[in-house]
Amino acid sequence: MDGRQPASLGLGQVRSLQGVKILRLYPPPVREVFAIYNDLDLPPTANREGARPYVIINTVSSVDGRTAMGGKAAGLGSGIDRQTMRTLRSRADAVMIGAGTLRAERLTLGLDETDVPQPLAIIVTGTGDVPLEEHLMVEGGQEVLILLSDAAPNRVVERLLTLAPVMRVPADSTGAVDLEKALVALEAERGVESLVVEGGPGLNHALISLNLVDELFVTVAPALLGGSPDQTLTLLRGPTLPARDRPTLDLVSIHLSGDELFLRYSLARTPSHAS
Amino acid sequence: MDGRQPASLGLGQVRSLQGVKILRLYPPPVREVFAIYNDLDLPPTANREGARPYVIINTVSSVDGRTAMGGKAAGLGSGIDRQTMRTLRSRADAVMIGAGTLRAERLTLGLDETDVPQPLAIIVTGTGDVPLEEHLMVEGGQEVLILLSDAAPNRVVERLLTLAPVMRVPADSTGAVDLEKALVALEAERGVESLVVEGGPGLNHALISLNLVDELFVTVAPALLGGSPDQTLTLLRGPTLPARDRPTLDLVSIHLSGDELFLRYSLARTPSHAS
Repeated sequence: MDGRQPASLGLGQVRSLQGVKILRLYPPPVREVFAIYNDLDLPPTANREGARPYVIINTVSSVDGRTAMGGKAAGLGSGIDRQTMRTLRSRADAVMIGAGTLRAERLTLGLDETDVPQPLAIIVTGTGDVPLEEHLMVEGGQEVLILLSDAAPNRVVERLLTLAPVMRVPADSTGAVDLEKALVALEAERGVESLVVEGGPGLNHALISLNLVDELFVTVAPALLGGSPDQTLTLLRGPTLPARDRPTLDLVSIHLSGDELFLRYSLARTPSHAS
Repeated sequence: MDGRQPASLGLGQVRSLQGVKILRLYPPPVREVFAIYNDLDLPPTANREGARPYVIINTVSSVDGRTAMGGKAAGLGSGIDRQTMRTLRSRADAVMIGAGTLRAERLTLGLDETDVPQPLAIIVTGTGDVPLEEHLMVEGGQEVLILLSDAAPNRVVERLLTLAPVMRVPADSTGAVDLEKALVALEAERGVESLVVEGGPGLNHALISLNLVDELFVTVAPALLGGSPDQTLTLLRGPTLPARDRPTLDLVSIHLSGDELFLRYSLARTPSHAS
């Protein structure tokens, strides 16, 4: 923010771990908070009876809608964004990404603390091209699970089993993992009741098309990046969502830290389109 | 918003023209307002001495960063967004778009009211392919100006002159309009001291690359659209902005109407990159 930044709210020493002021702007009244989503409860009490996990997508985007440059999201968000991502992971039973995201960069799907339970790390793949050893940094005690389509040949399964446990799930009509069946299996077989999805945009698009996402958490980084479609990613990669598959977004909350915005939306199909 | 929507702020009958509640969330305190940017003053008092107009970009984007589907932005924003676009136009001396945006859809660059001064409507073109008669709906008394590159042949100029006044400006190294020289000429020759740019993404990208934009107004529509790059547009179209050409964004204000967010950023080059 610039010279127009308002004076402190006068709430004393309410400061985040990183010493940066965080304001919860919405719902009113505005107040300073210690951390974003610190009081989040997943799954929400009203959503504990489903056959599939409660699914949230968490992502960071520039103001011009870029979620990654050169395949990598690293560097787009601030330290507070990183802390917020860890908070969301700590509230969920599992964290899921597509294999393409893992191929793009070296990353962790865990928490910084080593003395707390780690979420299950799930990699979704249709082909089995999963560079686990090179790109996944596994925190102490974190379990990893590869979700593999039934369409993949047995030699792929055998190779992956040397790296991590593999859950075979039915293929959809394209040979990719049937995500609805995969989620139901994750809850039934692994007890996953809440899941954070961290991309990439192909997985995000598939889940939203199938009406499998309950909430979307978007950090809007105060940046303009530009970049051609082959250099950059956006939140969704895939065909234009037909009106019947387009969710209604309700804004649940807004936090502000520096010039970085943290938006939380709940997703629903409009009643006229509900099945 | 959903059931978590807070109670009214109790400020009485503060309602927008369309009867929809608008909250100014930032800077605090939160309060209900009658219209968004109604007290906007362009150019700001501190910025009245420049050789070029004060330039703002105004756009609407879905949460996944799409600014248009099938080339058309129409339908992405709400009635309040449309009203806000009119407010911004009413505060500026001129409204500018690229010719591609005009080719994509039928539009107006004016105000709804016919008894007030209309901003100058400016179309930027390198080639002269400007379907003015078919696509530009001109409000009563609105002047139109075509900004044409010096590189365009004379027969193009002659044809365009049958449609509207033409201002020839030097070409840049690619043959396109040299935007910096064009802006200086607009101020010197036409008295344009404030300018709203309404896209498309190629014009936005060129202006930002050249450090010619002072503020960015983005409406975030509560929608997820998807769509391949050839079906959809984003705020910027062009190469990844190198770090030295990437502006610093300061968040000036946030308004909320329904689930639609109105973000206002001021743009600056970081001091270490300033020329």
